[in-house]
Amino acid sequence: MRIIETIEEMKIFVKQVKARGLSIGLVPTMGSLHEGHLTLMRQAKEQSDIVVVSIFVNPTQFGPNEDYTKYPRDLTGDSVQAGTAGVDVIFHPQAQEMYPKGYSSFIEIDGITQKLCGLSRPGHFRGVATVVTKLFNVIQPDIAFFGQKDAQQVLVLQRMASDLNMNIVIEIVPIVREKDGLAMSSRNAFLSVEERRAALVLSSSLQLAKQLVTSGEINVEAIRQQVIASIQLEELAQIDYVEIHSYPLLETIDQIIGKTLLALAVRIGNTRLIDNIILEG
Amino acid sequence: MRIIETIEEMKIFVKQVKARGLSIGLVPTMGSLHEGHLTLMRQAKEQSDIVVVSIFVNPTQFGPNEDYTKYPRDLTGDSVQAGTAGVDVIFHPQAQEMYPKGYSSFIEIDGITQKLCGLSRPGHFRGVATVVTKLFNVIQPDIAFFGQKDAQQVLVLQRMASDLNMNIVIEIVPIVREKDGLAMSSRNAFLSVEERRAALVLSSSLQLAKQLVTSGEINVEAIRQQVIASIQLEELAQIDYVEIHSYPLLETIDQIIGKTLLALAVRIGNTRLIDNIILEG
Repeated sequence: MRIIETIEEMKIFVKQVKARGLSIGLVPTMGSLHEGHLTLMRQAKEQSDIVVVSIFVNPTQFGPNEDYTKYPRDLTGDSVQAGTAGVDVIFHPQAQEMYPKGYSSFIEIDGITQKLCGLSRPGHFRGVATVVTKLFNVIQPDIAFFGQKDAQQVLVLQRMASDLNMNIVIEIVPIVREKDGLAMSSRNAFLSVEERRAALVLSSSLQLAKQLVTSGEINVEAIRQQVIASIQLEELAQIDYVEIHSYPLLETIDQIIGKTLLALAVRIGNTRLIDNIILEG
Repeated sequence: MRIIETIEEMKIFVKQVKARGLSIGLVPTMGSLHEGHLTLMRQAKEQSDIVVVSIFVNPTQFGPNEDYTKYPRDLTGDSVQAGTAGVDVIFHPQAQEMYPKGYSSFIEIDGITQKLCGLSRPGHFRGVATVVTKLFNVIQPDIAFFGQKDAQQVLVLQRMASDLNMNIVIEIVPIVREKDGLAMSSRNAFLSVEERRAALVLSSSLQLAKQLVTSGEINVEAIRQQVIASIQLEELAQIDYVEIHSYPLLETIDQIIGKTLLALAVRIGNTRLIDNIILEG
């Protein structure tokens, strides 16, 4: 497995791969790899000849008061894990390499970015769309793999790829969870033992909503209020948002009819976690 | 020569060309072709195996009170001209094909878009950068050819291609002028006989500036005021802007030292024309 740190070297590698007629699968990550990432990599390996994992903590998708500097970084550990998943190349550029002096181009997606995490984190999806576009142009993958845990991110990137006529398939991989239900996240590493227990309130409240729908409840506000109430029972939890929208258009709805996204962001102590579930009415 | 109207058909053609190992040169235009465009096409033909010309009057680069609907359109005449220049394919999509319902992705370039035409035409370069990105993704050219007449546009697109790591060379082709000096433009077709004569004030004022520099004047404001005065002598002319900036960074300067861009936009009757010259101090 190679680790490539410059755009120029990465482009040379890609050119060689393309000349041999091989396909490329890309798994964009911010590192601090966990089982969720490894699932993406294994799926990429199944569907592509060459698997590239990018590890880049992207400054443009963090707000000024967010956790960019303290976001966990562990290239050594990540390399070992990526190797076991059959990854061929880790692309690991420095911030300076991706955003040199004078950098000034950004991708903006209107509409579906104006809710959920787009509201809580202004500029977040602009940063995500921009770095993903850059990675797409550098690595030129046939398929790129993203986790459903970042449900809105996936929708934004699908919208972008479709709107801008990119020649890349965006593949969504289901959420990978710990045995007790907590969605895998690099930010889980920030949780104390007590917070780790409290963090279960995210997945358990999603399960509550699922049970409500199964038992016939279709009123969006009723479900939302019960989810909010169940999270508020947890003292360490502070709700950022609990929202229910149509899926995949993220339109405002009153009733659960057809595919519906219940997405939530909750602060456990200082750590902001997200989770979601597709409800089917 | 083929005329292709859908993105899907264009992508199939491109795939076939790439499979044969041939290079693609792209000349993006809004049609109503003139000798300036034909020069771009001939240069594209020299440097590429296959030449694609896009003809698309791009709605997103026109402001609400601009000339989108009355912009000249003549596909039949354009096809004849493109054929004589050795063009292989005209890509001619409808607005609906490029911007379907729900379209919401845009490319924004900060900095160099905040002056000159970017100030006079808010959103103009956002529309240009977006449509060019889409054309790049659909046609996947090795080289794209743009005219220096749109000096700021070229700088914006070079910035974009570099920032976003696009795998495309952007080639700049010098301004092509009528014998009397008027820069070729599709909008010249709007000019009455009287306005056509008045429009010479653009190129003649640039020549005046050049003479001033040749004779030793390096004070930017002095040159600018003389250019403004010479344009104001023409009754039919109304200045939009006359600006002098460093080139290619478009920084504010006091003196002509090194490469400098003198760019102007002038309304002749209802027709807004632009022109520019590189001054070397």
